[in-house]
Amino acid sequence: MISKNKITEIKKLAQKKFREELGLFIVEGTKSVIDLLSSQLIINELFATDEWIQKHQKSLNDVPYSAISFSELERISCLKTPQEVLAIVKIPSFDIQNIDFQKPILVLDGIRDPGNLGTIIRTADWFGIRQIVCSDDCVEMTNPKTIMATMGSFSRMDVYYTNLPDFLTSSHIHGTIYGTFMQGSPIQHIEFQLNDILVIGNEANGISEEVEALIQEKVHIPSYAISDTKAESLNASIATAIVLYQFCNKIFEK
Amino acid sequence: MISKNKITEIKKLAQKKFREELGLFIVEGTKSVIDLLSSQLIINELFATDEWIQKHQKSLNDVPYSAISFSELERISCLKTPQEVLAIVKIPSFDIQNIDFQKPILVLDGIRDPGNLGTIIRTADWFGIRQIVCSDDCVEMTNPKTIMATMGSFSRMDVYYTNLPDFLTSSHIHGTIYGTFMQGSPIQHIEFQLNDILVIGNEANGISEEVEALIQEKVHIPSYAISDTKAESLNASIATAIVLYQFCNKIFEK
Repeated sequence: MISKNKITEIKKLAQKKFREELGLFIVEGTKSVIDLLSSQLIINELFATDEWIQKHQKSLNDVPYSAISFSELERISCLKTPQEVLAIVKIPSFDIQNIDFQKPILVLDGIRDPGNLGTIIRTADWFGIRQIVCSDDCVEMTNPKTIMATMGSFSRMDVYYTNLPDFLTSSHIHGTIYGTFMQGSPIQHIEFQLNDILVIGNEANGISEEVEALIQEKVHIPSYAISDTKAESLNASIATAIVLYQFCNKIFEK
Repeated sequence: MISKNKITEIKKLAQKKFREELGLFIVEGTKSVIDLLSSQLIINELFATDEWIQKHQKSLNDVPYSAISFSELERISCLKTPQEVLAIVKIPSFDIQNIDFQKPILVLDGIRDPGNLGTIIRTADWFGIRQIVCSDDCVEMTNPKTIMATMGSFSRMDVYYTNLPDFLTSSHIHGTIYGTFMQGSPIQHIEFQLNDILVIGNEANGISEEVEALIQEKVHIPSYAISDTKAESLNASIATAIVLYQFCNKIFEK
């Protein structure tokens, strides 16, 4: 059983305002929760069906959990298709002072679509890139749609929110700051280094003017299209994936 | 003004059943409609605000259009954020007999998410790949979410729906049939040819067994991840993008 008050409290976490106020976010679904359980993130409370709890008892350790019915889970879910498990998790605070400048850093300037951010986190995780620096106007990592789209990768990613011009002028940066644009050096010819910084822009407007001023080399993804008419641009998460693939390819295929 | 009956009729097109029955689908938003107007697709009716019509009068030619208010557009829209223009378009029928086996063909086996299909169409269009063969259980190209995600690219793409095993055993195929799997030859080492066939599988289950039996070479996208734990897989549209990028790169960078 779950109290009416508790349901109201949890449902509030669908909204950014309350997530920030309470410092909590929601993680749903077996894949995401299993990844969460083996991460450093702190679970405040976990709700699941009896069946789910029995099956995953060993992984729960000292996580406070409650068995509730599936129809109760439906009531607290943020998703169209509710899952058998839902966890309330403390929002981690990543201090930009701890970022490792010797390792690759992906920078996102104004990514607004939660699905795009989630897909970007999942893709970065695939390629072993674990540091993402977001501009303050990026959508929050804790948005339920973002979390869902990461397919568990949120639990392995350090996501920093900060003022990008300040970050990009840090004296600790020794690599090159690359940014993707509609014009620039073709990405397949760039000799990337492990400590480079890769900047991706907003879905509609690309990289902002003040960040553009700090880009050291503009790169672009060639379309190779034979015909004149073609797509005007790539989706932001697609562009990021191609950049990360090419980046890793260049570094690890040497 | 738009009649109540007409509104009901248009709203029905949000559903696959009625799209199939009426042979019509909906295209919304300036970018998509502009691309539509310069395509071979047939517009049955176009609804837009006065302002929009005045601005785009020249492109309308003999398209039957009606000026309606923005609040009327809101009532017929399939989108959360209604647009200034909405077109009712005849569903094109692409005959698989007309496919060009000398040009690249992208094959989708069971793509279910409309956003993924739309993003795949947009990405293929970017890379100048204009032929997509979908298994019969793929989501329809005419789904409003798919159309939206293509950002106009639906108007430049030949999308065939067919039985994949039949298609993949066609005697007209002279290229190699590649499929993406979790194990296989690393994609960056494949010597692609222009007439190759590239097969992408379902979001959750990958390529189906009967299609797998017809794949001539299994390929995989390397993760290059340094750490042990990482994302289990890539989003289907992300995997497609990396395959298409690497395919074009190999062919055009020779």
